[in-house]
Amino acid sequence: MAVRKVLENAYGFDDVAIVPGAVTTNPELVTTEFTLGERTYSVPIWASAMDAVVDPRFAVQYSKMGGIAVLNLDGLQTRYDDPDEILDQIAAATLPESTEIIQRVYKQPVRDDLVARRIGEIKDGGGVAIVASTPQNTKRLAPIAIDAGAEVLVVASTVTTARHVSRSLEGLQLAQLVKQVAPIPVIVGNTVDYGATLELMETGVQGILVGVGPGAACTSREVLGIGIPQITATLDTALARDEFFEQTGRYVPIITDGGFRTGGDVSKAICAGADAVMIGSPFAGTQEAPGRGFHWGMATSNSELPRGVRVQIGRNHSLQQLLFGPTSRTDGTENLVGALRTSMATCGAQTIREFHSSRMVIAPSIKTEGKIYQIAQRTRE
Amino acid sequence: MAVRKVLENAYGFDDVAIVPGAVTTNPELVTTEFTLGERTYSVPIWASAMDAVVDPRFAVQYSKMGGIAVLNLDGLQTRYDDPDEILDQIAAATLPESTEIIQRVYKQPVRDDLVARRIGEIKDGGGVAIVASTPQNTKRLAPIAIDAGAEVLVVASTVTTARHVSRSLEGLQLAQLVKQVAPIPVIVGNTVDYGATLELMETGVQGILVGVGPGAACTSREVLGIGIPQITATLDTALARDEFFEQTGRYVPIITDGGFRTGGDVSKAICAGADAVMIGSPFAGTQEAPGRGFHWGMATSNSELPRGVRVQIGRNHSLQQLLFGPTSRTDGTENLVGALRTSMATCGAQTIREFHSSRMVIAPSIKTEGKIYQIAQRTRE
Amino acid sequence: MAVRKVLENAYGFDDVAIVPGAVTTNPELVTTEFTLGERTYSVPIWASAMDAVVDPRFAVQYSKMGGIAVLNLDGLQTRYDDPDEILDQIAAATLPESTEIIQRVYKQPVRDDLVARRIGEIKDGGGVAIVASTPQNTKRLAPIAIDAGAEVLVVASTVTTARHVSRSLEGLQLAQLVKQVAPIPVIVGNTVDYGATLELMETGVQGILVGVGPGAACTSREVLGIGIPQITATLDTALARDEFFEQTGRYVPIITDGGFRTGGDVSKAICAGADAVMIGSPFAGTQEAPGRGFHWGMATSNSELPRGVRVQIGRNHSLQQLLFGPTSRTDGTENLVGALRTSMATCGAQTIREFHSSRMVIAPSIKTEGKIYQIAQRTRE
Amino acid sequence: MAVRKVLENAYGFDDVAIVPGAVTTNPELVTTEFTLGERTYSVPIWASAMDAVVDPRFAVQYSKMGGIAVLNLDGLQTRYDDPDEILDQIAAATLPESTEIIQRVYKQPVRDDLVARRIGEIKDGGGVAIVASTPQNTKRLAPIAIDAGAEVLVVASTVTTARHVSRSLEGLQLAQLVKQVAPIPVIVGNTVDYGATLELMETGVQGILVGVGPGAACTSREVLGIGIPQITATLDTALARDEFFEQTGRYVPIITDGGFRTGGDVSKAICAGADAVMIGSPFAGTQEAPGRGFHWGMATSNSELPRGVRVQIGRNHSLQQLLFGPTSRTDGTENLVGALRTSMATCGAQTIREFHSSRMVIAPSIKTEGKIYQIAQRTRE
Repeated sequence: MAVRKVLENAYGFDDVAIVPGAVTTNPELVTTEFTLGERTYSVPIWASAMDAVVDPRFAVQYSKMGGIAVLNLDGLQTRYDDPDEILDQIAAATLPESTEIIQRVYKQPVRDDLVARRIGEIKDGGGVAIVASTPQNTKRLAPIAIDAGAEVLVVASTVTTARHVSRSLEGLQLAQLVKQVAPIPVIVGNTVDYGATLELMETGVQGILVGVGPGAACTSREVLGIGIPQITATLDTALARDEFFEQTGRYVPIITDGGFRTGGDVSKAICAGADAVMIGSPFAGTQEAPGRGFHWGMATSNSELPRGVRVQIGRNHSLQQLLFGPTSRTDGTENLVGALRTSMATCGAQTIREFHSSRMVIAPSIKTEGKIYQIAQRTRE
Repeated sequence: MAVRKVLENAYGFDDVAIVPGAVTTNPELVTTEFTLGERTYSVPIWASAMDAVVDPRFAVQYSKMGGIAVLNLDGLQTRYDDPDEILDQIAAATLPESTEIIQRVYKQPVRDDLVARRIGEIKDGGGVAIVASTPQNTKRLAPIAIDAGAEVLVVASTVTTARHVSRSLEGLQLAQLVKQVAPIPVIVGNTVDYGATLELMETGVQGILVGVGPGAACTSREVLGIGIPQITATLDTALARDEFFEQTGRYVPIITDGGFRTGGDVSKAICAGADAVMIGSPFAGTQEAPGRGFHWGMATSNSELPRGVRVQIGRNHSLQQLLFGPTSRTDGTENLVGALRTSMATCGAQTIREFHSSRMVIAPSIKTEGKIYQIAQRTRE
Repeated sequence: MAVRKVLENAYGFDDVAIVPGAVTTNPELVTTEFTLGERTYSVPIWASAMDAVVDPRFAVQYSKMGGIAVLNLDGLQTRYDDPDEILDQIAAATLPESTEIIQRVYKQPVRDDLVARRIGEIKDGGGVAIVASTPQNTKRLAPIAIDAGAEVLVVASTVTTARHVSRSLEGLQLAQLVKQVAPIPVIVGNTVDYGATLELMETGVQGILVGVGPGAACTSREVLGIGIPQITATLDTALARDEFFEQTGRYVPIITDGGFRTGGDVSKAICAGADAVMIGSPFAGTQEAPGRGFHWGMATSNSELPRGVRVQIGRNHSLQQLLFGPTSRTDGTENLVGALRTSMATCGAQTIREFHSSRMVIAPSIKTEGKIYQIAQRTRE
Repeated sequence: MAVRKVLENAYGFDDVAIVPGAVTTNPELVTTEFTLGERTYSVPIWASAMDAVVDPRFAVQYSKMGGIAVLNLDGLQTRYDDPDEILDQIAAATLPESTEIIQRVYKQPVRDDLVARRIGEIKDGGGVAIVASTPQNTKRLAPIAIDAGAEVLVVASTVTTARHVSRSLEGLQLAQLVKQVAPIPVIVGNTVDYGATLELMETGVQGILVGVGPGAACTSREVLGIGIPQITATLDTALARDEFFEQTGRYVPIITDGGFRTGGDVSKAICAGADAVMIGSPFAGTQEAPGRGFHWGMATSNSELPRGVRVQIGRNHSLQQLLFGPTSRTDGTENLVGALRTSMATCGAQTIREFHSSRMVIAPSIKTEGKIYQIAQRTRE
């Protein structure tokens, strides 16, 4: 019998709040550690594989602070001998011309020698080389990257599933890739679906990126109608992870990727079930980032159907301030790690996995008011 | 026993998002074909029977691209020898005087000879002649249109039902009309109701237009309190179509009509169950459209109770760009077909009927933020 | 056992939409008649007992159009020999000083002779004399009003219930009042509660005013936290009416009072179950109204805790245009009766009681967008 | 088996409305009394332990009006011989520099002699000395305060629970503190959780402060993601109080703390179950308050992660006007006690505990409109 399609409610950062419970703890007792393969990172915040966020210099600096920076192997760094020149061009463009410039500069091909060279620069600087490529380029670039010393491999496209229907190409075999590069961990993404997450975990990958369409530099929702707010995406995929863990004993972390602006957003994603988060625009706003105060999504360069714009972020703070403060900003945009620790302590959670059990509520109105007041302020400027 | 009236929630484009699932496919494997009677159209997007959207020239051009343009037989084209002169007047008016001018120019009677002449112009240009009239005028105009070569007949009023209570006139007998004009397909609309859709399908019509009150040029909700958001209207009428198909084996497509602005909106309506969509203002904004950068609803001309205004759209792009790109716009207003193909591929759907099974969620906040940011921007201009 | 207080959702005009159903009819077949006692009124729209809305001249004019105008016996008309002078003062005041002026002019006592004189003026002009007073003044003023020829008695306070706890005064006995003034109909209000409505109907009153706090000139929600959106208030009290009718065979109409701006709002209230509506500010904006383009609530004059402000409405149209058009306005603010007839016809309802069965949905987003666009426009002015 | 985290809806002041019921009463029959220990206060509104709100002079004045003012023992009054000088500095600062100044001036240590001196000033003036300190300072300051004549002890931190996990310090033993200072009442806070409230009541405390993150000067929600709207916090903790009362016969009042702007907000919190409320910014806006027209949260001074800003309130009215009117303001910001009495009377409630049974509904749209209109107005200024 025909049935009416059922639509469930989905929630984003602005729709929810964390609720303190019956126990609290001291922030000093909190650990925010994230473990992947052999390594443990003290900061569970990944820097996105985006050209305005991570270049080899940034990767080195952020590694030394305990964080995880991902270099995009399909970006400007591996297409140009001197990517700084291109980054200068993008930053100098007016907004109307910027999309066309971005579409043009990404037409240059990715060079194998530059892949190796950039990874070498990270290693030489003492950083951990974590690299990302699209599924199409992974077969070709993964061996080069591993030879050059990459320690984590991220395979990321707009949407990733274990099953992909294709006539013209066989597609990347994830299970095979995982075996080939072992013991180097493979992270895949992005996905938002319970079933897709389970299937991806069964291929043997060591981590899943969660999130389609929420980023500040992304307009997938307008262009394609596609997207799902991050709290619901995290709740759904975290459930898949927990069930997979119960069935197999293997814990595959999920990393919520995109749409973050404040320490509150980071805390909410982790409370909702994320093991770590991946952020772009807050890093693009650091003095250390290669974006020169600008940020753009990787789908901005699509020549047929760009889904993103160049966004002016400004160079607001040092990486140190962004992550650890101290700060005089009271809007949550600095000291992200301090905020996470305080949130966890307020809920009595000493580890990220304990924090997954804290209570959240749907409470949109405060934020709506906040937004509305922001408009009122902006429109008065 | 007395019962309290029950109010269910209804949703529009801005309230929902499409969620990628466990399978994806390549956009090249996607077909967006729409079949009606003997013909198959490659573009499932109808151009509205509105005077700012379709004239014979436009119908010819859009036909050749694989689309479906509907000429309004109750509009300016069939009231004036030289409609361009009238269109110039409307475009030249100030906003305050425009409603009165529109009320006045539509007082001129519809001429039989002009009906035949406009259809001839479309045929001569090599286009497919698809025409629309109101139920009141259909008896008189349908024979003329069919003689002149019309290939599809659209009978459209603000709200159409199979049962209409009337004292002064017997009303149009749909079942009889369908038999008389066979094998020419009859499309009727508009409706939003599950029961009305079933009853209309039982009259033998070959398609249903869905949507009351959502268009950009329509203010029915303010004036009459009547309207229903398009996603819910589509879900309800698609259920009727599916049940009718199960019972009779006859598949009567539904065409969601009105309120579209972006490729995301088109994708959402089709994902919700539409077989095609009908759009007005995005076409009115093409260089090929007769509206001269303006758009107005057919109820704007009502002399007692106008329910619409003239809206300034601008002449933003060519028909080619609107439908197929390429584009540098990142707001979803260009390359509508490319966006639909990408959306479908992201959900693993190779046909429109497969896309009907993809998951959607209610996720209003992102859009609310979007709206609010738009205000903030506009108010700063 | 202790239980958590349960909060149900409540809805206002902007939250809902009427949905066309499986049958339509012609507007000419629609009747909007409202019967009270021996009389039938062709326009089911009451003009509020407010000083900016109704004076004897207005009452005469509106009576002749088939409407119902209520003269406030506790207002300026019965406190001053020449109320026009006071109305001029209020209109001439600046906004900051207006509340204090209103507080002051309402301190003058109500005079018995003026009560009789104003009713006489309505009768002499050929109008129907419908008068309102507060519960406190009813004992004293009702006999005078009836002697002078009043045909309907409205007893209205901010909130009315059949049971009122009071130590200092015995309170008005409604059942007794109804018997004393019979066969003159007694209307009481305002209430919003299912139980209170049932109890009030049992006292024998012939009509109930519904609505607390929604009016344009009312700020009860900010000041007291009290209020309930009108659609929910109407649904709840209409259920009480229908149950009372089933049990007793006596049909006591409910009149939804306050918060209306458009024909759409009127249609929604009646579709939700109202037998008629009472409106203030739209009438205050007519050239015939005594408010001189301004409007204020009766609680604005409270000297301790005013709950309302003087609102500038403008003198936008004639009473004729407001009610029956024709109009060039497309925002629903003119031709209210035409809009109601068209709404009813669109739902296939030939009488108000048939319209009570039409479908409504909760559909807030369209209106939110509308509001937001309005802001955008206003802030650009 | 793994389960998906469940998110319930939470509501704030703007989301709800009080609904008049089937009985009303006269405001003169209403009592708003609040009893704590041996004393009964006629005004159930506490003035927050914040430096912009209460100094000894203010405490004396407010005591005499029947209210409850709490002096902050961890604030400027106990750190500086001449706090007025510091208050002048804060008021003179520009907004950008104000957070840093506040961070700096709160680095000065709290002095035992000043604790005693300030309490003495309140006693000498004839006021009731009610004092607050953080859990960390309570052991040291409580004996001094009690010696100096404090009559109520408030132990308040951002979030308080009976169980606190800590390695470095054993933490304050509440049960022990209650015994030590008896019969002086101990109030603790803040909490929002059903379970935490029950556990805190079991320690023997005489009152609970409810609310995390809603205040006007607080940005916990942005910074930490933590917060819960006050109506839901009140409903949850009131349920704990009622169950504790049923089980033990001891009634421990809850005081909803933070986020109030109007008499409507106060009425809503009490209707939701609060026995009293604690407000900050409305008092900071009185001429008697020490804030000089400014207000800031106690977490603004956090040197690592400030969670609040200095807000300009203005000096809008006298304490008398704020509490008892009369007023010409129609936005609910004056005559808070009069508004509460009128609200209670409208619901037929003669005592606060009767008011706990009145009906509330979720009715966000009116307020959203209100907010949106406010923006429209502000942006036009």
